[in-house]
This record gives sequence, structure tokens and C-alpha cells, in this order.
Amino acid sequence: MPAIYVAGVGCTRFGRLDASLLALLAEAAQQALHDAGVEEVDLIVVGAMNPEEFTGDGTLAPLFASFLGKAHTPAFRVETGTSSGAGAFAAACAAIAAGFARTALVVAGEKMTGLATPRVAEILSRMIDPTERRYGATMPALAAIVTRAYARAHHLDARALALIPVKNHRNGARNPLAHFQAEITVEDVLGSRLIADPLRLYEVCPISDGAAAAVLTAERRPVRVAGIGQGSDHVALRHRRSLTSFRATQEAARRAYAMAGVGPRAVQVAEVHDAFTPFELINMEDLGLAEAGKAVRALVKGETALEGRLPVNPSGGLKARGHPVGASGLAQIVEIVWQLRGEAGGRQVREPRLGLAHSIGGLASVNWVTILTRD
Amino acid sequence: MPAIYVAGVGCTRFGRLDASLLALLAEAAQQALHDAGVEEVDLIVVGAMNPEEFTGDGTLAPLFASFLGKAHTPAFRVETGTSSGAGAFAAACAAIAAGFARTALVVAGEKMTGLATPRVAEILSRMIDPTERRYGATMPALAAIVTRAYARAHHLDARALALIPVKNHRNGARNPLAHFQAEITVEDVLGSRLIADPLRLYEVCPISDGAAAAVLTAERRPVRVAGIGQGSDHVALRHRRSLTSFRATQEAARRAYAMAGVGPRAVQVAEVHDAFTPFELINMEDLGLAEAGKAVRALVKGETALEGRLPVNPSGGLKARGHPVGASGLAQIVEIVWQLRGEAGGRQVREPRLGLAHSIGGLASVNWVTILTRD
Repeated sequence: MPAIYVAGVGCTRFGRLDASLLALLAEAAQQALHDAGVEEVDLIVVGAMNPEEFTGDGTLAPLFASFLGKAHTPAFRVETGTSSGAGAFAAACAAIAAGFARTALVVAGEKMTGLATPRVAEILSRMIDPTERRYGATMPALAAIVTRAYARAHHLDARALALIPVKNHRNGARNPLAHFQAEITVEDVLGSRLIADPLRLYEVCPISDGAAAAVLTAERRPVRVAGIGQGSDHVALRHRRSLTSFRATQEAARRAYAMAGVGPRAVQVAEVHDAFTPFELINMEDLGLAEAGKAVRALVKGETALEGRLPVNPSGGLKARGHPVGASGLAQIVEIVWQLRGEAGGRQVREPRLGLAHSIGGLASVNWVTILTRD
Repeated sequence: MPAIYVAGVGCTRFGRLDASLLALLAEAAQQALHDAGVEEVDLIVVGAMNPEEFTGDGTLAPLFASFLGKAHTPAFRVETGTSSGAGAFAAACAAIAAGFARTALVVAGEKMTGLATPRVAEILSRMIDPTERRYGATMPALAAIVTRAYARAHHLDARALALIPVKNHRNGARNPLAHFQAEITVEDVLGSRLIADPLRLYEVCPISDGAAAAVLTAERRPVRVAGIGQGSDHVALRHRRSLTSFRATQEAARRAYAMAGVGPRAVQVAEVHDAFTPFELINMEDLGLAEAGKAVRALVKGETALEGRLPVNPSGGLKARGHPVGASGLAQIVEIVWQLRGEAGGRQVREPRLGLAHSIGGLASVNWVTILTRD
């Protein structure tokens, strides 16, 4: 891939917001365009999981381009479930690399809180294999199966796992854009109600609204897209090789590292997909940031805290920043850009030169890894 | 863009089919893989407009890859409304051009007949600007406004416009994959019931199921992708510069011709988006295949018939082949490939070396033009 740079980024506050999906996308986009110092782009790529059902908006790409006042800019939408924001970013990079565009606006978002929770759960369950859905599986139920298998394989107890949301809420409390900006304790986690045994409320991301955006260009800028990789796996959990790791992450990481010409040791800050917080440990291991079963040690020792050797989810992650599904993959990339530029305010980690964003689509059936560097 | 070739194509029969969306996609995909003589690809790009609402299928890309037995092949979905098939084709070309993949399977489809027609109409209406939708606009109603303006501007009568579906049904009768394989007369058209004045039933495409597929490669093959262009316009009809032409087509064509290094005179066969049949004339003019207001002359003189100077919609078009919305943009490309290879059977046109496919998303808010050549 030829060199592609992130010229500007933007992100709305995440949470239960009194704004339409189009308004959220536009707010993030305007920020990114302003940050990049450009007014026009050659292409708009929109990431969203299911605007048709969440908000009733169809053909979202031209609808958004019209709303933004750029009705004549070519626009298309990319969908990979809950990793759609990362997918849109990758497709925009490909379009620039192919010479279809010189500058592109990537924007991704979702508006979820307008519907009752059971309806949201029904929409999210479309990511589940139809047979498993027919037997009553829900996303939290499947995540609980994975968590149970992982915890048993590596002898993890609930107190250790509770440190993940505690860390991520601590980071979120330092992120003015986060859905939750309050710290929590291990006792809060262990005392919260069971969602799907062993997962408790404070181990599951909230339902959020929000949008993120980035402007990409072939012109030299400080932050460069060093590597992009995608990996896929069976949608059906019962067909997977393993329940304690995600092959889709491993493949995505292998490809992204190869393109970037680096290994996991080069990663200085990471945003990983913690919609169900125990997945943070699985992701670290699949990304090569820890050996199998050893990620918990880094967590307990504080190595993944803001001040640690390898800060993970400085933004607060999906747990505390929130998870407007289509937005999250791009919001992670935005956070890494801010970290690389030293603009992350109270949650800034120490002068990273290389960061990684990892996004899961469905229950890890369509994952993306994006590596960014500050040259 | 570096040279990209179409190594193989496939297409299901279109119509009211007793098969799931996944089965239709897989049938087309297996045909294309077999035609290309390959078993594995590096990437799968899926085009579909709204599988969530039409069939309840979410994260369609990994779901389809799993169904096809290629769960570990990276996959993503592209959506541009009724032109999603063409959008997926373009995104796959970009991925190959960017070096993300060497071979890609593009597959696009929709399963629409499982729902009652009013529900299908409701889903399709998501492509309409929300304000215009609120005032009661439907897709046929907006198409009728365009048709009325175009017919008045160029003094066209209903008998002349009726020649379009007559021609396309004649072609469809020669296409074993077409939804409708029966010829009709001008009297049939004029005697069919009004859908939205002046559009009659036989001037509006049917609701169909179906899927199409293509295998793309960077390796030299007889059919090459010479040019791809996208154009966008206001979703809201009331904000358009003109009601008698589609700016999104004009821009897409300009870009595709520039990439291909040819002009409209080089086009020897074309598939254009005739979901509402009078649009065939508007499209020909926007594509530069006829002067403004003059496309009707080519039609009346038989120049766009199978045996004519410039055959248009030899497949039968969306009117007679059918319009499973996400599939159509790719099915057009498949037809052009068959025509270039001389494999179009009873509807084969005379030895074309260059063909064009034109797809409309929404009411011409997100359009694609694809130019293919036989080297």
C-alpha cells in the first residue's frame, strides 16, 4: 500500500444523545475536516451497522453527503457489523491507494437509544448464526460462554476480571467524550446484576449514540496508516477452532503487522474491543501483546493502565466510552491519532510513536486491526 | 488504477424464487468461481441493500463467507441502495488495486419476495429524502414526476415510451435467467394499470429475488475493467438542478470514461438502469450515448434493439430480467462480460469489444458506471 496519512479526526460525545444519526455524523465530520484544514474531499465512506432498523435511514451514504452539504461528493457505505467503522476506514484507504481518490472523509456512527432495549437486542442478534439464534442465543449469552471457557482455561477469578472495567472506567473518567465518566470499584463490578453468567452489568458495554470521523490523504502528514488487516471466522460459535481466542483477530493482526513491518513489541498504546470486558484479555493475547493466559498478569501489575508499559483502552474502551456500534471501530482509531499527536488531555499516555486499534464485528467473525505511526 | 480483470462470472435466475438469500448468493458465487477456474480468493465483497429488513440476515459478509465454506476469507459488505452490486464491484477493484488482495469474489443479491408488497415498498422508501417521504412520496411517485418532466420537455408521448418495455421484454424472452420471459406489445403496456401517473405497470420493474457474482484478479484475462466512476446527487428531488437528467450519472460517466480513456462513441453494448423504463432514455443521454431529448429517436429507429447499432439492455434490463435490488448492479456487469465473451446465447449482440454498465442507487443519488473491454 502506498503511504496514506490521517490529516484530521473528530468524534462526538458518546452516550444517550438528543441528536439524529445524521447530525452526529455531521458533527464528527465537521470536526475532522476542520482539524485537517480541508473543505473538500474526493470521497466519503460511511460506516454504520444498521441505520435502517435503528433510525429508519436508508442509503445512508448519499443521505449523509446531502446533509453535510456535499451532495455531489461520491459516497458509499461499508458494513461489517460492530466493526463497520474500522471497515469504512480500510475501504477508504484502499480507494486512495487505488488512485480513486486523493482525499477521503471516513465517518461512522450509530444512533441506538431511540429504541427500547429489547428491540436493540433483537437488532444486534442478527449478528448471530441463525441456528444458534433459533436456540435462543443472545450476544451476551455467547460472550458468557467464551468468558467461561477462557476463565476456566486460565484459572481466572471474577476479582481479576473485574479489574478490566475498573481500569477502563478510570480512563473514561478522564475522557470528556465518554458515555460514563465515573470511576467504579471491584466491589461495584462484583455487586452489579448478572447479565449472562458470569458476565455482570459492569462487564458489558452500554447502548450508546455517537459518531467518529477521519480525513485521509495521500499527502504527507504526521500520522501515517502503517498497516491494516482483516480476519474472518465462522459466525457460528460451535464451528470455531477455539473458544478461548479469536482467530479473526489473529489473522487480522498477522496481516496488519506484516504490512506495517513491525511486530507486537512495537505497539506502545492500544485500543481493543472490550464490548464484553473479559475480551480485552483475549484480544491482547490474539494481538500478540501477551502470551496465552498471561494478559491478566499485565492487567494486575498495572502495565495496561494509563501510566503502564502498554496502556490499553486509554479512551475508556467500549465499556466506558460507550459503543454506538458502527462508530466504535473508527472512534478507536481517532483515539490512537490523538494519543500519537499528544492531544489526549488527561488520559494522554507517554509519547507513543506507534499505536494499534482492534475492532470486532459480530462475535469476532469479521475483525480489523489498524496500526498507526507518528513518523 | 492498475489492470484488473474479470476472471469469471455467475448469476442465478431472477424471479420469485424458493431459495434463501444465502443460497442465492452461494449459487452465483460457485458459478463465478467455477467459471474463473479458482477455488480460493483473498477477499469476498458482498453487495446488498437491506438484508436485515428483507430477510433478517445481519453481518451478511461473514455470514455468507461461512455459508460458502470460506469462513476464514476476509469479507466486507458495501451498500449504496439499489446500486449496491456495482458498489461492491468497485470496492473490490480498489482492494485489488491497493494490493490488499490479488483475487476477490464479488457477490451481490437480494431476497425480496418473502415479504408482502406494502412492506417491500416501505423498505424501499427509506431511499427517499425524509422530508419528501413525510409528504407521502414513494419511489414510483418520484419516478413519475421525473418521467412527466422529461416527457414534457421533449414532447414524448406514451406510445413512444412504451417501446422501451416492449424492447426489454423481447430481450428478456431470450434470457433464460430473466424474471419475465414473455414478449409484450405496446397495447399491453398502454392497457396495464396506472401505478403512478404516467407510469403504468409494464413500465415499472418487478420485485424479484436473485444474485450475481464475479471473480476479479490482477492476472491477465480476456475481459478487463477499463473504467469505474461514481457520481452522487442530492437525495431530495426538490434540491436537484434538473428533473430531466441525473447529475449522478453524468459525473459517474465522466469519471469512468476518463479512467478508460474512451468516450461514449466507443460503447458497443450497454446495460442501463431501467427500474422505471423511461429512465432508459434519460440514462442514455446522461451517458453521452444520445443527445438530450434524442434518445427516443434511437429507440424508435431500433438502434437500441439487439440487432441495432447500440444494443441497450440485451439482458432484458431491470424491467424484464427483474430487480433484486442489491444484485442488479452486478448482474448488469455479468451480462456485459457474457456479451464481450460471446456467450450471451439467443440475446448475443454482434462481437462487442467494449461495454458499459450503469446502475442507479436510490432515485439517482448514488450511481455507478463500469466500463469493460475485451482486449
